Amino acid sequence: MKISSIHLERATEQLNSLPGIGKRTALRLALHLLNRSEQEIQDFAQALVEMKQHTHKCRSCGNISDEETCVICSDPKRDHGTVCVVEDIRDVLAIEGIQSFKGIYHVLGGLISPMEGVGPGDLNIMSLVEKAASGKVTEIILALSPTMEGDTTSFYLYKKLKDLPILITTLSRGVSVGTELQYADEMTLSRSIVNRQEYKSQ
Amino acid sequence: MKISSIHLERATEQLNSLPGIGKRTALRLALHLLNRSEQEIQDFAQALVEMKQHTHKCRSCGNISDEETCVICSDPKRDHGTVCVVEDIRDVLAIEGIQSFKGIYHVLGGLISPMEGVGPGDLNIMSLVEKAASGKVTEIILALSPTMEGDTTSFYLYKKLKDLPILITTLSRGVSVGTELQYADEMTLSRSIVNRQEYKSQ
Repeated sequence: MKISSIHLERATEQLNSLPGIGKRTALRLALHLLNRSEQEIQDFAQALVEMKQHTHKCRSCGNISDEETCVICSDPKRDHGTVCVVEDIRDVLAIEGIQSFKGIYHVLGGLISPMEGVGPGDLNIMSLVEKAASGKVTEIILALSPTMEGDTTSFYLYKKLKDLPILITTLSRGVSVGTELQYADEMTLSRSIVNRQEYKSQ
Repeated sequence: MKISSIHLERATEQLNSLPGIGKRTALRLALHLLNRSEQEIQDFAQALVEMKQHTHKCRSCGNISDEETCVICSDPKRDHGTVCVVEDIRDVLAIEGIQSFKGIYHVLGGLISPMEGVGPGDLNIMSLVEKAASGKVTEIILALSPTMEGDTTSFYLYKKLKDLPILITTLSRGVSVGTELQYADEMTLSRSIVNRQEYKSQ
């Protein structure tokens, strides 16, 4: 694909550098932007630059924030004794979305992944251990994805935290709500039998 | 989804405004960009703004170009008597990709679509008629998509051009190369029988 304009090609290359945006999609997006006014494109570009300039990682939990401490960590109504450990800010949004968790978060910024060269030192783990050792935390919920990397990270964190007088919990695993049993995968089905719970009518 | 940073939210909204980029994907892209350096984000933003500032529509064919006349229209080795009419620049790229067309292009910038409120006046049609009437053109190839809009536009252009002493052609239609016959749709199969061609061994 040889583009007749070097400027269009550069814009396409930049869009193509985003994850999940292939060459064809990048060109489609560039041509779409080209149909906007220069002011609109300036606004678009400005929003991206300002995001970088004006956001911080919350110094307490690692969540993205406009202030030094994020709105969740600075909210006195939240339960600061219960810390939910998540991979990234999208997990915070997902859990906030269900509106039933009243504790605070700790955003690791990734998962331990030897395949991708991500070790514990690359993640926001030290500050979690410090927070846990402060004596104010009573429960740490390891809310990481049930994947190889998630399990590895949970196990690493468990080892780091297990000697502290803190309850360490993890999300329950089992068949998803609304799933037909015959379509659940073997691992999930097997776990859901091992971890079976007493039946309670609600 | 309530994002904890107004700046992150704005960037996500802008990315979300691109076609085919949903809210979740927009947030993923924004967080990806946030991991880059400020210089990298400046470069990204700059490439989009410069594309708008420094590209033109070729005054002859409507293709995107850094100069007033695009590289294809200003190439004396191309056959300026054969004009291939296409919907947009991506079609130019697709046809240039096969490296067997030596004529020039005419980019309409869209297709006639009453459903989307696009009429002939919104497209780059007047200049095609002028070009055709100049006496230098011997063949016009209507290379538009075989869709309702494409067929409507082809028919409109045919009516506008049919009185000129110019050969008007269109792309051949039939079963795609590599398609198993039983999976071809009825319209395609029916057309490919009506427009059957003499068998030639190559």
